[in-house]
Amino acid sequence: MKNEKHTVQAITPRSEDFAQWYTDVVMEAKLCDYSNVKGCLNYLPNGYKIWENIQKNLDARFQATGVSNVYFPMLIPENLLQKEKDHIQGFAPEVAWVTQGGEETLEERYCIRPTSETLFCDYWKKCVQSYRDLPKIWNQWNSVLRWEKTTRPFLRSREFLWQEGHTLHATKEEAEERTKMMAQVYYDFITKDLAIPLVCGKKTESEKFAGAKDTYTVEALMHDGKALQSATSHFFGSDFADAFHIQYLNKNNQLSSAYETSWGLSTRIIGAIIMVHGDDSGLVLPPHIAPTQVMIVPIAAHKEGVLEKATEILHSLNDSGIRTKLDDSDKTPGFKFAEQEVQGIPIRIEIGPRDIEENQVTISRRDTLEKSTIELENLSMKIKELLETIQKEMYQKTLTFLNEHTYCASTLAEMKTLASEKTGFIKATWCGNRDCEEKIKEETDGFGSRCISEEKAQGSCIYCGKEAKHVVFWGKSY
Amino acid sequence: MKNEKHTVQAITPRSEDFAQWYTDVVMEAKLCDYSNVKGCLNYLPNGYKIWENIQKNLDARFQATGVSNVYFPMLIPENLLQKEKDHIQGFAPEVAWVTQGGEETLEERYCIRPTSETLFCDYWKKCVQSYRDLPKIWNQWNSVLRWEKTTRPFLRSREFLWQEGHTLHATKEEAEERTKMMAQVYYDFITKDLAIPLVCGKKTESEKFAGAKDTYTVEALMHDGKALQSATSHFFGSDFADAFHIQYLNKNNQLSSAYETSWGLSTRIIGAIIMVHGDDSGLVLPPHIAPTQVMIVPIAAHKEGVLEKATEILHSLNDSGIRTKLDDSDKTPGFKFAEQEVQGIPIRIEIGPRDIEENQVTISRRDTLEKSTIELENLSMKIKELLETIQKEMYQKTLTFLNEHTYCASTLAEMKTLASEKTGFIKATWCGNRDCEEKIKEETDGFGSRCISEEKAQGSCIYCGKEAKHVVFWGKSY
Repeated sequence: MKNEKHTVQAITPRSEDFAQWYTDVVMEAKLCDYSNVKGCLNYLPNGYKIWENIQKNLDARFQATGVSNVYFPMLIPENLLQKEKDHIQGFAPEVAWVTQGGEETLEERYCIRPTSETLFCDYWKKCVQSYRDLPKIWNQWNSVLRWEKTTRPFLRSREFLWQEGHTLHATKEEAEERTKMMAQVYYDFITKDLAIPLVCGKKTESEKFAGAKDTYTVEALMHDGKALQSATSHFFGSDFADAFHIQYLNKNNQLSSAYETSWGLSTRIIGAIIMVHGDDSGLVLPPHIAPTQVMIVPIAAHKEGVLEKATEILHSLNDSGIRTKLDDSDKTPGFKFAEQEVQGIPIRIEIGPRDIEENQVTISRRDTLEKSTIELENLSMKIKELLETIQKEMYQKTLTFLNEHTYCASTLAEMKTLASEKTGFIKATWCGNRDCEEKIKEETDGFGSRCISEEKAQGSCIYCGKEAKHVVFWGKSY
Repeated sequence: MKNEKHTVQAITPRSEDFAQWYTDVVMEAKLCDYSNVKGCLNYLPNGYKIWENIQKNLDARFQATGVSNVYFPMLIPENLLQKEKDHIQGFAPEVAWVTQGGEETLEERYCIRPTSETLFCDYWKKCVQSYRDLPKIWNQWNSVLRWEKTTRPFLRSREFLWQEGHTLHATKEEAEERTKMMAQVYYDFITKDLAIPLVCGKKTESEKFAGAKDTYTVEALMHDGKALQSATSHFFGSDFADAFHIQYLNKNNQLSSAYETSWGLSTRIIGAIIMVHGDDSGLVLPPHIAPTQVMIVPIAAHKEGVLEKATEILHSLNDSGIRTKLDDSDKTPGFKFAEQEVQGIPIRIEIGPRDIEENQVTISRRDTLEKSTIELENLSMKIKELLETIQKEMYQKTLTFLNEHTYCASTLAEMKTLASEKTGFIKATWCGNRDCEEKIKEETDGFGSRCISEEKAQGSCIYCGKEAKHVVFWGKSY
């Protein structure tokens, strides 16, 4: 049967070359492919369906907090992008410019949106007059473009898909609360639906989003020990709104400043799913967002009753809301097994003449690669339970990995040793000074600040020895 | 109460100025608004939610025919757009060009996709080798850009939202079947979910999509008597695939041509919903795609038990899957009624102390503006039935309008008289000659060919008198 495992054999072992393993998994699982448009990807059915499931689950969580979806233009006139100076400095070097429309050369250039804060502020200026018009709690699912030099599937590409939420509030407190609330929504979604454990907290000054007062981040640990920023939530204070002359009449009829937030999660998160859960056989998908949750493979399908029984199971599982497919193609069972494994489908059900005789099916779990048999009675209920078990155990497994790869350093020497010998996060105290932050990164070969832990700092900065202001998670990052 | 109807009073009567009525409805129902990006719209929550419901219902119909969703780049390199010569001729005058990426001037220009046939063909060339790789039945939900000069909300804008399906097949027959199948999917969706009756058939040579062999269209009749092309499905033969050197090995190991189709429906259809169903009080939404199906308005909400009962009904309807909202704001009931009406919410439920006493609610139907009372017992079931009744009766009403505005002409003189006195469709025979088609349009002040009816032609062309090849629906169009 080994020889039939064509697709799996094409995957480089993860321990041998992590980057190549990643690319192999993306290609063999047919998630996306390179297009002939430099730096842009074609999202193929297997990959795009994961994104659709992410959208569905995350959007439901947004709706529950009062978010409304909208759609704003993909083009931003140059003068609009320039209105908030930190923002333009952050984005100008990496935007694409439209200079020609049809036959005419444009008087003013448009950039393709790298993000849409400026468009939302520009509209709010027009439509917000009174406290009655607030808050605005809007979100859009769209694509953005940043003119990146190098490209890696899902992790970095010129065009990518994401959601960007933008909100406007009457008070600073309300805006800050929304910023934290959305960071919590991401935390819940990623840990519960994607089974990815996270560390979270504020970004340092130097790592904040262009123009933001505070940036909250959730960071996941990949299997190679590098961190991946998985979603961010920004508090802008009133800087953006002031730059766009947004003011509203409060209940006392006084002109007041408004406070803005934005928050986003992109297709990068698919890269995290691959690098957190994947193994040498390919992708391993958390059941909550797997396009197909169960693949049925008939064994000796030509024998009487096998295909009928397989089809009966297919319908019964689908009717129970379990996303199930039956592979009744003329490929060999071994080839079908390999395909199910490389695509990360959580459960494989094998059914053959012997299973039918014994009134059972054979089950193979993708996450553990364990096989077992279960009786046909109440199969849908059992499979539903098993999917939830898999979801929970995948989270536990990766949480253990995260805990085992999170170290504490109380001196710089200790941190340097850990940085040279281990991969993962290192927790260490910091004074809040940008120079120390940079030096720590330099002297540990790239352990930059990922986020500021919420725990109270004690003692002194491991670099300068002055009083510590924060405990920081340090790590290498994608 | 008249004075409170602020929002409704802002709408110009439909019979007075149809174009202004349309714009008023769009703005007062807060569907979309003009952005400061010339020719581009901001889709606001009320309008975007209609599009999301359209996506959900239409996508389910696509899935049932085996369609997979993908996402391809928004940029097309100039050399790629030029590969199919009819196609480039059709689109070159109306695309936007990216010439600058970050700080660098690009060696080759990219256009922002006006449509994506070229990108799909370019990828299929790479990934299709054998008959085993066929068919490809793909679709994407995305935005496209065409550099239009004039803009009208939903009907015409530079950027718009749509879906574009692209398929590749081993045989001409299979591709032709898919082209017709998707036209039928649109027909079913628009008539059943949008309650809009249609005429359908092939486009004439001069009205076909750039590069297509056949274009099937479904055309709806607006209340002002003009037609709106509501969705199209194109058969390309093997021209596109040949231009991109797509070939596959058939079962006999011979290199063969592949056959392509594409099909699309855009946010234009929201314009059709407005112009087919709307009235002088504003929008009238078909229940199947209404963001909110029922609005509950409490009467004398300060009186004991009213808000409690209203909330109880809200939860019970939502639990039954009816999209329901409760307006418990401090606005007056009259103002709330006007808002529900202008936004086209199919059912309003009023509940006050007297209703509670009588164990009933007062119902107002948006489509007929009729009021009635119904008992509270089994309310969810009754509301569900009423929503279906409204959906069906809205279709019947507009079908009657379509039938009453579809005329037959057997001579050119007759057609000219009809064209000058009536609005709507005129059915008349045609020889198939492009000159006759143009002359008919000229001499009837704009009645162009909308589509070729499937009925068999008899007699002679009403223009030249030669043998008739087709019966054509003629009409003025958006």
